[in-house]
Order: sequence, then C-alpha cells, then structure tokens
Amino acid sequence: MARVSQEHLDARRRQILDGAARLFARNGFHATSMQDVLKEVDLSAGAVYRYFTGKDELIAAIVKEVLGEIRAAFADVTRQSPPPPPDILVGLVLGRTLRVWPSLNGDGEPLFPRLMLQVWAETVRSDELAAVLADVYTELRERWVLAVEAYQEAGMMRSDASADHAARTMIAAVQGFIAQQALFGAAPVEVLQDGLRALMSMPDTPERSQLG
Amino acid sequence: MARVSQEHLDARRRQILDGAARLFARNGFHATSMQDVLKEVDLSAGAVYRYFTGKDELIAAIVKEVLGEIRAAFADVTRQSPPPPPDILVGLVLGRTLRVWPSLNGDGEPLFPRLMLQVWAETVRSDELAAVLADVYTELRERWVLAVEAYQEAGMMRSDASADHAARTMIAAVQGFIAQQALFGAAPVEVLQDGLRALMSMPDTPERSQLG
Repeated sequence: MARVSQEHLDARRRQILDGAARLFARNGFHATSMQDVLKEVDLSAGAVYRYFTGKDELIAAIVKEVLGEIRAAFADVTRQSPPPPPDILVGLVLGRTLRVWPSLNGDGEPLFPRLMLQVWAETVRSDELAAVLADVYTELRERWVLAVEAYQEAGMMRSDASADHAARTMIAAVQGFIAQQALFGAAPVEVLQDGLRALMSMPDTPERSQLG
Repeated sequence: MARVSQEHLDARRRQILDGAARLFARNGFHATSMQDVLKEVDLSAGAVYRYFTGKDELIAAIVKEVLGEIRAAFADVTRQSPPPPPDILVGLVLGRTLRVWPSLNGDGEPLFPRLMLQVWAETVRSDELAAVLADVYTELRERWVLAVEAYQEAGMMRSDASADHAARTMIAAVQGFIAQQALFGAAPVEVLQDGLRALMSMPDTPERSQLG
C-alpha cells in the first residue's frame, strides 16, 4: 500500500468536513445521513469511515472547528488595550469568523449561520455539545467583560454599568445577527455595525424609573 | 353524546398545546413523537387527533401562537409616540412575550427560548415555516423602523443613522438574548436592558475610518 502523505490525509479530512458541514447547514443534522455525506464528497464509505466513525463524530469535529475559530478571533481582537469600540470589534470578529469557512459562504447562501442554528438546536439533544458550547460562551464572556472594563477605564463607557451585562448584550447582538442571516438571508456585517453606532448615539438615562 | 362546551374544547386544546410545547422545548421536534405527546397530556389518541392531525399541525399551531403574541406585544408597545427608549421597549416586549406561556417558564427552565431555537432550526426543513417566520420578521422590522424614526425625529438618535440597520440591531439583541437563555440558562430581562444602556452611554464616532 502506497504511503499517504500527511498533506493528503489533511486534505481528504478537510473535504469530508466541508461537504458534511454544507449538508448539515442546508438540511439540518437530522435529515442528513452518512449516505448523503458519502454522495456529497464523492468518496467510498471506507474512505470516509477511516476519518470519522459516524455522524456524531462529524458533528463534533465541525463544532470544534467552528468554536475554535470564534475563540481565536475574539482572542486576537481583544488583545489591544483599550480594544476597538463595539462596532469595530464586532466587525473584526464576525468578519474573521465568516471567512473561516469559505466553502460555507458561496452564492450568498449564509450556510455558516445556518450551521450555527443547527448546533444551537442540537444542544437539547446532546449534553456533551451543550457543555462544550457553555465553556466557549463562558470564555468569550470573560474576554468581552475585559474589553468592557477597558472601555470603562478609558472613559468610553459609563463606569457604573455592569460589565457583565454589557458583555452579554454585545454577544447577544452578534448571536442575533447570525440568527437573522440564517433565517432571512445573508447581510453585510456593516448592518450590525451601523446599528450599534446608532444605539451608541442615543442618550442613556440611568435614572429612568419606568422599569419598575 | 353529551354536548361539549366551547370552553371545554378550548381548555382541552390548550392542554394539548402546552404539553406538546413543553416536550418540543425540552427534547426538540425530532425526538418528540405523538406517542410522547399523548403520554405527557394524559389523553387518548382519539382525544388528541380530534384537535390536531399530527406533529406538523401541532408545531404549526404552536408557532402561530408564539408569533402572534410577539407581534401583539410589539404592536402595543410601539403605539406610543415617541416610543420608550430601546432598553424599556425591549423590557416590555420580552417581558410580555415570556409571560404569554406561563407553563413554559416554570422552575427557572427557559423553555420558551428553547422552543424558539427549535423553531428557528426547523426552518431549514420547512419552507412553509420559514415563510411564516419571514413574514413576522418583516412586520416587526417595519414596526421597529418606525420606532427608530420616531427616536430620530425626537432628537433621541443621530438622524443620519440607517433606521433599518438600527432596527435590525435591536431585534438582533433580543434574538441573541433569547438564544443565550436557551443555551445557557434563564436570565432576567434586566441583563439586556442594562447592557443596552451601557452601549447607549458610549460615544459614537461615525467619522472613524478604521473599518477599511
């Protein structure tokens, strides 16, 4: 048997992951079978099962890759002190995340956001996946809290605001924007950036008591 | 056969919808069978099938009810002119939406948000559901654009900001907050309200050109 280079193995693995991610994003995890994956990547069962024992392992590998990239994008961007303001930060993180998987973003079809929605929904079925997502969320939240605290120290945000609540809200805006793309079609990240700037242009009146 | 009152019919229908929604939120649409629903609501197949022909009809009825309430909450709240600022608006809409289905929000388990994630994920499988969601989104977006324009007219927001982008961003924050609850546990709506106020306390500097 010919010796197979690591490069070849990596490329083959990549090909399987790309094809599977495309199908999962389009049709959901449940409606996609391993047969569908074999057909999509045009490989034999033997070739595919050498890399992945089944659908659950494929899903786990894809989730790991996506979350790893989101994590890295955040880490890079929040290294500056003070970090760029929220609209710029969001643009850098989302921009990088969407570029990660070019094969998932062709033809204006927002496959990456759709894949994220499938992953979110899958957490009800898989405690393991839920735990992985929760870990990444905790890490992102901590990093974003540091960014918010740096805004506050630099006098860019009210110092009596809860850094954790501000961090959660910014992450929520990104998550919701991803959901909108999955549900209603691709949109440039500038939409979210403009919107954040518009919000930042509003007066905040913390003494308001209508909440009660 | 005894004549059954409309009230009784409504209560029975309610009981089936509540039980099914609870199961769907906990286990997802795919992992929930009609047998599970019958067991959960403790009714015979005959009793349940009198109201719903099957799982798809149950899902459709639940989605219709949830979206109807979100729509009504928005309509009520944005009727004021100018509408309350974003943090208050979001509190009113989310608060009302979460109160709609009290049986879905017991024990600190955020079942309503989980149900929403299932609905979102289900749109890949069902074009009909995707179309219904897109309609509601379009309506909400139009209403929120009107609110943003009212903010701008009242001098509460930069007048050169895109009202549509601001509206999409506020809706994204709400959607992302719902996703966070589904994924990482219940949280009071004040978290999002505080976060929005923190963002509003930041300076907006539209002339920044780091975007590139």
